[in-house]
Amino acid sequence: MVVFINGEFVSEDRALLSAFDRGFLLGDGLFETVLVQQRVPFRWAQHAERLQRGAALLRLPLPMPVERLRSQVAELIRRNGLPDGVLRITVSRGPGPRGYSIAAAGPSTLVMALHPAPPPMPDTWRVATSSIRLVAGDPLAGVKTCSKACQVAARTEAEARDADEALLLNTDGQVAEGAGSNLFWVEGGRICTPPLSAGILPGITRALVLELCTELSLPACESNGTLETLFHAEGVFFTLSTWGIIPASELEARPLPHSPLVDRLQAAYQTRLLTETSKT
Amino acid sequence: MVVFINGEFVSEDRALLSAFDRGFLLGDGLFETVLVQQRVPFRWAQHAERLQRGAALLRLPLPMPVERLRSQVAELIRRNGLPDGVLRITVSRGPGPRGYSIAAAGPSTLVMALHPAPPPMPDTWRVATSSIRLVAGDPLAGVKTCSKACQVAARTEAEARDADEALLLNTDGQVAEGAGSNLFWVEGGRICTPPLSAGILPGITRALVLELCTELSLPACESNGTLETLFHAEGVFFTLSTWGIIPASELEARPLPHSPLVDRLQAAYQTRLLTETSKT
Repeated sequence: MVVFINGEFVSEDRALLSAFDRGFLLGDGLFETVLVQQRVPFRWAQHAERLQRGAALLRLPLPMPVERLRSQVAELIRRNGLPDGVLRITVSRGPGPRGYSIAAAGPSTLVMALHPAPPPMPDTWRVATSSIRLVAGDPLAGVKTCSKACQVAARTEAEARDADEALLLNTDGQVAEGAGSNLFWVEGGRICTPPLSAGILPGITRALVLELCTELSLPACESNGTLETLFHAEGVFFTLSTWGIIPASELEARPLPHSPLVDRLQAAYQTRLLTETSKT
Repeated sequence: MVVFINGEFVSEDRALLSAFDRGFLLGDGLFETVLVQQRVPFRWAQHAERLQRGAALLRLPLPMPVERLRSQVAELIRRNGLPDGVLRITVSRGPGPRGYSIAAAGPSTLVMALHPAPPPMPDTWRVATSSIRLVAGDPLAGVKTCSKACQVAARTEAEARDADEALLLNTDGQVAEGAGSNLFWVEGGRICTPPLSAGILPGITRALVLELCTELSLPACESNGTLETLFHAEGVFFTLSTWGIIPASELEARPLPHSPLVDRLQAAYQTRLLTETSKT
């Protein structure tokens, strides 16, 4: 694997960072995970926008404009000879003195790696609720920081319970999102997902699913729900950039029904993925 | 500076990590910051205990038993020729495949660095409340993870408002802790601090201050308070391993009174620091 690190393309074993990088010391960074198909990073503009928004909020200077980042991504795809894969972009605040203050830290570290295409998507996910809560209204929820210990712990908890993904509730007791995915459910024929104010990440695939609902004339809404809402839903599914849309077959070991609307959304997603990645 | 990294002592510029280390990618690690005086890591047993507890909770294997860690710390102090300093121990889950699952990750990465002694402690801190909330009852609050983006953002916010430290409230609206410190206040002659259930880190210096209260026969209690509690307190102070006890002179740009009990605790802290670090 060829990795882009701070302006250079190097082999994986030479992709090295200072042990004083604040990404390592404090999770003080941002990342994006982008599906690459036919050499095209899917929904690039949306990922780049979220990265820029995060950089502004955290006052973390991006080492290059996103247009230049895009051309380095093209070069990374070329050098790896990997037209289909998963791109991970990580920007950290770089090395800095001890402590939390960002004064005197930097310059930012930029790492981009192109991983092989994800394994085939499972048909469904078994989901277990986590004991970890997200903060309703969290001002940082809108940006994808590298501080994911909560999400890692939630996923670990879920896997220990033989589930594939964790469902996190927020501090108001509302269902919020998965450890690495956004949550949707079908209720009265409507596609529902928690609003961003629930303290969730504005997922790129989440936004796409809402677009697809409009395209398919499916009624959609952002609304808060509880575990009971999910148990009574006509279907529950999760979204993420690497796999798109995954229906949940079980929540807390209780079976969930399958909604044919999820099949329609999955088909529309696949069509959109093909269309947008064969444009160039 | 000589740095310990994965079993080796190397110079600072050779302390390098894989860009695929989950500490860097996901803040998936733990750390401790330990004051070293006269070659003695102050409150070692307490720091080691918290690190072990965190490792158990996150299922993150420590690369060596804490007894061996202690002897490597002694060697690090010796090699740096620095009897007084600040030790940072970082343990991350090490390199791993993409994604949150801890399956197939590791071996753990261990980095220890001995930084020069902290600059002289400021007499007081000006404190500003943060817009970021901590989760009351957070099951992860008890361990010191490397996922500190919230704390970094809170400190950044505070510094932008010309304050030295941020005060974070929890999701129940109670005062919780500083970005990098624990909170205390004096109320009716009693030394008060939020209970661990407020979602705070069990600070090593926080625990020591509670011990010192017993020693000095000062009444102490763990109780929840609000911003109003602090504005009406006889004194407010913060605790942290590098500096001990720092009184707050201002909160939200409103002056706070100074309690002579804080002077007594500071003196007792200094005595204890001297006593415990001249034993060996």
